[in-house]
Amino acid sequence: MIEQSPSLLALLKQLQRVPYLASKNLFVVAQHFLDLDEQATEQFCRVLMNLKQYVEKCTECYSWKEKDKGCSYCTAPKRDKQVICVVENWRDLIALDKTGGYLGVYHVLGGALCPLDGIGPDELTIKQLVARVEKGCSELIFAFNQTPEGEATASYIAMKLKGKNVRISCLARGLPVGSSLEAMDRLTIYKALSERRPF
Amino acid sequence: MIEQSPSLLALLKQLQRVPYLASKNLFVVAQHFLDLDEQATEQFCRVLMNLKQYVEKCTECYSWKEKDKGCSYCTAPKRDKQVICVVENWRDLIALDKTGGYLGVYHVLGGALCPLDGIGPDELTIKQLVARVEKGCSELIFAFNQTPEGEATASYIAMKLKGKNVRISCLARGLPVGSSLEAMDRLTIYKALSERRPF
Repeated sequence: MIEQSPSLLALLKQLQRVPYLASKNLFVVAQHFLDLDEQATEQFCRVLMNLKQYVEKCTECYSWKEKDKGCSYCTAPKRDKQVICVVENWRDLIALDKTGGYLGVYHVLGGALCPLDGIGPDELTIKQLVARVEKGCSELIFAFNQTPEGEATASYIAMKLKGKNVRISCLARGLPVGSSLEAMDRLTIYKALSERRPF
Repeated sequence: MIEQSPSLLALLKQLQRVPYLASKNLFVVAQHFLDLDEQATEQFCRVLMNLKQYVEKCTECYSWKEKDKGCSYCTAPKRDKQVICVVENWRDLIALDKTGGYLGVYHVLGGALCPLDGIGPDELTIKQLVARVEKGCSELIFAFNQTPEGEATASYIAMKLKGKNVRISCLARGLPVGSSLEAMDRLTIYKALSERRPF
């Protein structure tokens, strides 16, 4: 019966494109927007439109920044510009930065290599990363997801940087904090064992 | 570092209010809106604003309808206006209607009684339901969630309708289709047993 309401259908169609809003959640979120009053809806729309007006990608690290300000990562005086942490996307950058344990700068690739999805090296900011390394950088940290795509991307970039004077490291693999051996999958335990560290 | 971008902070604050978008998902959705181009963002906003302009609550069943059209449930010629299915909210109505197994009309209460959250009978469309019953209706189906609030709402409405000539029924309780006894909680099994049906 909902087919008879073009406004509701248009809403559902828009929400379907938003990640994490599949099937059941869709209607919960639809109800949220139906329940908002006109003023609150206008405010929500203003915030979205402001993104397009005031936010852009940093031309150095390809994270998001305010248009009229310097990038909060690249221009931070406390951050070591000699250490670049390479991440697949902005969300991974946020996750790493929230730990508070990293004080270098970042490089957002914009995804991982995935030929099947049509994502080759030219779709990512790999060239720009190589250029940054050539300008001078002491260490590159690969902080990719533990997926075939993440590993392929790491291998590809390492190959591109062969012969360049830069140390490359990657995130440690092993047991998550608080995990029990019993509940963990075999491959993780195997990696934790083979990549064991001195105590 | 994200604190330095007021546009991004405003976006996160808006998304935090959307149900199902807690903590981690927040950034996935934020990235979705950051990645949208200006045209797509405008379209999304237009759809939201159209809701306020073209959608309103039906004054009969309190579901949503297009302003210039009749309610797709109340005005459907095939639906039996003598049978009213009472639901807590619009999402429950959609879930019921999707089954295709119900051909009566609906009544959306707008929630369930919950004194602790400040939701009393006056916050719901209970008076309007009683008025509908008084205008004539043969059966009322309570399709509430299996929660204390849902059950309290059912009891309250039943009390309000005492003495009125209307049959009241409620959804069957028991084992979900495809479920195994082993995996089901004790109370569900007890209810399925005590409310068993002839085979």
